Amino acid sequence: MATKNRRWILRQRPSGDISETDLELVEAPMPVPGDGEILVRNVYLMVAPTNRVWMSDIDQYMSPVGIGDVMRGGTMGVVVESNHPEFKPGDVVEGGMAWEEYSVTSRARLVPVEYGLPLHAFASVLGNSGMTAYFGLLDIARPKAGETLVVSAAAGGVGSIAAQIGKLLGCRVVGIAGGERKCQLATEEFGLDACVDYKRGNVLADLRSACPDGIDVDFENVGGDVMDAVLTHLNIGARVALCGMVSTYNASGDWWSPKMFRNIIMKRVRIEGFLISDYFPRFPQALDDMVQWVKDGQIKYRVDIVDGIENAPAALNRLFSGANIGKQLVRLSPEPALG
Amino acid sequence: MATKNRRWILRQRPSGDISETDLELVEAPMPVPGDGEILVRNVYLMVAPTNRVWMSDIDQYMSPVGIGDVMRGGTMGVVVESNHPEFKPGDVVEGGMAWEEYSVTSRARLVPVEYGLPLHAFASVLGNSGMTAYFGLLDIARPKAGETLVVSAAAGGVGSIAAQIGKLLGCRVVGIAGGERKCQLATEEFGLDACVDYKRGNVLADLRSACPDGIDVDFENVGGDVMDAVLTHLNIGARVALCGMVSTYNASGDWWSPKMFRNIIMKRVRIEGFLISDYFPRFPQALDDMVQWVKDGQIKYRVDIVDGIENAPAALNRLFSGANIGKQLVRLSPEPALG
Repeated sequence: MATKNRRWILRQRPSGDISETDLELVEAPMPVPGDGEILVRNVYLMVAPTNRVWMSDIDQYMSPVGIGDVMRGGTMGVVVESNHPEFKPGDVVEGGMAWEEYSVTSRARLVPVEYGLPLHAFASVLGNSGMTAYFGLLDIARPKAGETLVVSAAAGGVGSIAAQIGKLLGCRVVGIAGGERKCQLATEEFGLDACVDYKRGNVLADLRSACPDGIDVDFENVGGDVMDAVLTHLNIGARVALCGMVSTYNASGDWWSPKMFRNIIMKRVRIEGFLISDYFPRFPQALDDMVQWVKDGQIKYRVDIVDGIENAPAALNRLFSGANIGKQLVRLSPEPALG
Repeated sequence: MATKNRRWILRQRPSGDISETDLELVEAPMPVPGDGEILVRNVYLMVAPTNRVWMSDIDQYMSPVGIGDVMRGGTMGVVVESNHPEFKPGDVVEGGMAWEEYSVTSRARLVPVEYGLPLHAFASVLGNSGMTAYFGLLDIARPKAGETLVVSAAAGGVGSIAAQIGKLLGCRVVGIAGGERKCQLATEEFGLDACVDYKRGNVLADLRSACPDGIDVDFENVGGDVMDAVLTHLNIGARVALCGMVSTYNASGDWWSPKMFRNIIMKRVRIEGFLISDYFPRFPQALDDMVQWVKDGQIKYRVDIVDGIENAPAALNRLFSGANIGKQLVRLSPEPALG
């Protein structure tokens, strides 16, 4: 077994894009679990755009990561050693919450391996990303059959799932994604009715063409010009589930805000922000639905895996350059066979 | 009886503040009602910030006023001549919808004079302004007893009523208004728990002091820095009823949008725009409540009356300079005695 634990330390707050000197990979001694704690070998680090927010010191939904602290992030792994009565070696858990190869924690959650799906499914469609799509769409956006639903970042880990749930609800679903390949994936693999490639540079006009009846519901992941294009074409009484604004997190200076904010009044729009952490207690209910949909092939998912903790910052940057297709994961050690 | 009809024509779209050459007062012949039409002597012109929006040609919730057309605006008056079976001379009606002394229309609505309140009450607390407060607060914002409700433009025709309904619901109500006199009115006459004078220039800090438990609900009339201050102090799960953004309608260039938009996610906020016209069918229900509250003295109201159609543009400008206290009206002819 390894005797060292590699981990990423936040050295300074990024200004704009994350630079090489913002984070440092250090070698620490293998941590030792104390009373009530477990030692976990992390398998997947689930990077997400919001990680970038945690690096900044704005007022946000939890404390920013401190300078000199290990970087925070969702992880999933296998228990190596346990001083906690509810866990034993070999258990698959999540909750280490740090960019490191091994974690010691007293607050892990068991991954529901009894569903018989591979671990990377729990790190993506059945994890926070899929749950974000599920609750954001069903609880916040609440589209009705026959309505036009637009989903931005439609080939991403959240968007691709939200769009497919929209199809299950009977919506006309139009994706927005960057590049021909992603748009093809959105329509051919995920079954969307249309997909607008924002990299063609005509998102406002292309979105109008793709939504001849206007937009009733927006599942918003991107912000920026893409969101303004959506706001421009909203119908009266539209709803916006504000999940994220990935295009804006790397900007320096003032935070982005929508130029078309006035449409909130003009079109009598409901716009509502949400965070998946508020829904943790309701995961079991949602998992039953999602597992069934995945097993039936009604929901397809993609994971985009980068190997090695040394590539964690690069993996995060892929979310901002739009390089990833599906949920971006960093594999820190081999995936155990499940089910 | 008069033989001429003075009316305001929109000559050009204002850029920034309304200027003297944007509108022209002209004398037209007295209009003659055709089949199914009535001739109304207008008594009150109800000016509102949204009139300024109608003068611009942005995409909005109804057609902008055309250049060369008579300016649009809510009016209330007395039927002089009727070719419509449902109206007779002497009836009190609203719906002329133009800045003019006499209107011909086929689509008037009877003012419910049977409630026995003066006409200026129907032009304010029992008219669109009061109804905007009623539905915006009860239907959109939905504050609960014990919550902190902030109302901007708290001495205005909508804000003063929304704030008092908030008190009836058991909220702690904090107003925002411009100037010591308005703040005094808000707390002493309208019964608010506190009022922040934004003209003191410390609205962010003063609002924090006035809301030690944060802000649960915002009834937003103002936009701009005032709204950003409110957004900054929102609690998790807060709700914003977006009624208007009066501070921003006169701006030239891009429309205003909130710098603190990110808090919609960070604080899981629901923000919802609304227009009173969507609620016309539900006015009778609301009137029963509001009339009772007014008669019982549980809701107090103020009207700010300017005389003479020649002063209509000046009256509208009072809304943007913040000169008005209570609902701004232009009295075009003597008020009839009712009830």
